Amino acid sequence: VRSGPPSATDARHGGSLVALRYEDGTLWALDQTELPWVERELALRSAGEVAEAIGRLAIRGAPLIGVAAAYGVALELGRDPGESTLDYAAGVLLASRPTAVNLRWAVERVRASALTVPVPAMAAAALAEAEAIHAEELAASDLMAEHGAGLLAGARRVMTHCNTGALAAPGRGTALSVIAELATRGTLEGVIATESRPLLQGARLTVYELARLGIPHELIVDSAAPGLLAGRAVDAVIVGCDRVAANGDVANKVGTYGLALAASAAGVPFVVVGPTSTIDAGCPRGAEIEIEERGADEVQRVRGTELTIRGTAVRNPAFDVTPAELISALVTERGIARPPRPDTIQALLS
Amino acid sequence: VRSGPPSATDARHGGSLVALRYEDGTLWALDQTELPWVERELALRSAGEVAEAIGRLAIRGAPLIGVAAAYGVALELGRDPGESTLDYAAGVLLASRPTAVNLRWAVERVRASALTVPVPAMAAAALAEAEAIHAEELAASDLMAEHGAGLLAGARRVMTHCNTGALAAPGRGTALSVIAELATRGTLEGVIATESRPLLQGARLTVYELARLGIPHELIVDSAAPGLLAGRAVDAVIVGCDRVAANGDVANKVGTYGLALAASAAGVPFVVVGPTSTIDAGCPRGAEIEIEERGADEVQRVRGTELTIRGTAVRNPAFDVTPAELISALVTERGIARPPRPDTIQALLS
Repeated sequence: VRSGPPSATDARHGGSLVALRYEDGTLWALDQTELPWVERELALRSAGEVAEAIGRLAIRGAPLIGVAAAYGVALELGRDPGESTLDYAAGVLLASRPTAVNLRWAVERVRASALTVPVPAMAAAALAEAEAIHAEELAASDLMAEHGAGLLAGARRVMTHCNTGALAAPGRGTALSVIAELATRGTLEGVIATESRPLLQGARLTVYELARLGIPHELIVDSAAPGLLAGRAVDAVIVGCDRVAANGDVANKVGTYGLALAASAAGVPFVVVGPTSTIDAGCPRGAEIEIEERGADEVQRVRGTELTIRGTAVRNPAFDVTPAELISALVTERGIARPPRPDTIQALLS
Repeated sequence: VRSGPPSATDARHGGSLVALRYEDGTLWALDQTELPWVERELALRSAGEVAEAIGRLAIRGAPLIGVAAAYGVALELGRDPGESTLDYAAGVLLASRPTAVNLRWAVERVRASALTVPVPAMAAAALAEAEAIHAEELAASDLMAEHGAGLLAGARRVMTHCNTGALAAPGRGTALSVIAELATRGTLEGVIATESRPLLQGARLTVYELARLGIPHELIVDSAAPGLLAGRAVDAVIVGCDRVAANGDVANKVGTYGLALAASAAGVPFVVVGPTSTIDAGCPRGAEIEIEERGADEVQRVRGTELTIRGTAVRNPAFDVTPAELISALVTERGIARPPRPDTIQALLS
């Protein structure tokens, strides 16, 4: 892993944020652990390097993880094409994070594509498939923005959780692409962003993106959201998703379930946005989704500063599950499941 | 304000934590903004110094604020007895924080007491009243512990929010006194403590107290609580309160309402503990309670470390309101309102 020039946001990209870009055998990834203070790109050249970047959340966001993993398989085949390399690359990437289904979906797509060609052509086939996935997710972002902005045309103030923008998915992202589109249409007055402890994807990344987009915003601690929702501080809550079960239950950043409960109690629409690559048709319900438990240090410290007595025991689930009953609509690139139920989800996939 | 020797936890106090103690014209207060890293006592000698300590949360917790304010009035009268001093002291103390009703209750009690005697006797009368309030709240803590532990005899694992122990109220505190009593009775297996952003009263103070008490505990980020409750990680949620309205609605540390929603959805008992001095009989419902909005810096930084882009706009409500319908029981020193409703609350006060 080498750090590169800060080209991720330069003129070549028209000033927009590019979290991930492939160029001549190198996957350049904006290191999201250092944002917003340092804009630095990592140069990744193997499946192991990509997996490591995903594991420590330098690359994050379910769709972006999928695209990065796809390139990771292609990079590894470029070093040493063959079925055993394919198995190794898939194994190391699938082990990097357990919850986002996009990771598995993308790796399997690239693997299947590579297996249809002779060994010398594997790397090229894998790269073509990774680039196809990348392009599809980029197009999906625009479609989600359009569908979501149509659904939420009346929303003047919205609340969002974690980061779901250009740093979480190709293009303008998922939930944040809807917010950006509402802003473009001139109807949005402001955004309330949760800080999203422990890793502060809201305070660090969403605030960074909203500031770049020129969208008025206010930051809150996560636990302030229910009281603000009860006071009708916003017209809608919009979040992303890490995995959607076949019945419409959604696994997403820890805290999403509490937001959904509070939105439901306040009668505020609760909208989930994500590409269909996030839907796990083979998973019947949210209770079957594996929830990643991350290290104690994320809770004990923030940016090196201790928050509690050293050695304090911690529980640190990275996600929680929101039951479909609490979700007003699931916005995808193929349309809206409203409300998300087995039949409306199935309709999106067929 | 001078810092004193770290005597608040020394042998004179039998090893237990003493957040506040009056001695010969000085109110010694453990500076809670520096715990658990620094155990330092502040020497407070005027109403202004006490108000300043309350305002910056060096002294916090509704019952402790009340006791400190009572001493604050007495200290000021000791410097210059008279009605105008009384008005000045009451004014500066009442302005220090708006939400906890104990502050007003204690100041009014001391004021009334001072007004019954000639000017030269005012300081002594005020001090006697402050000491009476202190003693009453100390006794109340033991009674709350007993009532609460009886109510929750079957609870093996509990969750708590913010800090409600010896640092929040005289004696063993409010909700944490119940937890300590359950531990003493040998039935408690462990506590899940929320970190309680922005000021981390859970991560800094509750963890500190639980460690001192030898009670097994795990720390979580605030937004992890709803998912853990849905998974039945605990048998009960126990919290304190900053003001209870006549109908049983409760204002407490921001995030309490979200915990109550999640506990209700999971069928987990949600118990509020506080002395009757926290009940505001003149306040008909929670919607009428003034919610303090604190500074942006509390959210933007933690212990000096920046968490977001400098200058980011913030909303920082210090409290929220939990409707009585979500509360299983209100435990006070005079008994239990179960559930808290206008009639059960009134019964405690008459």
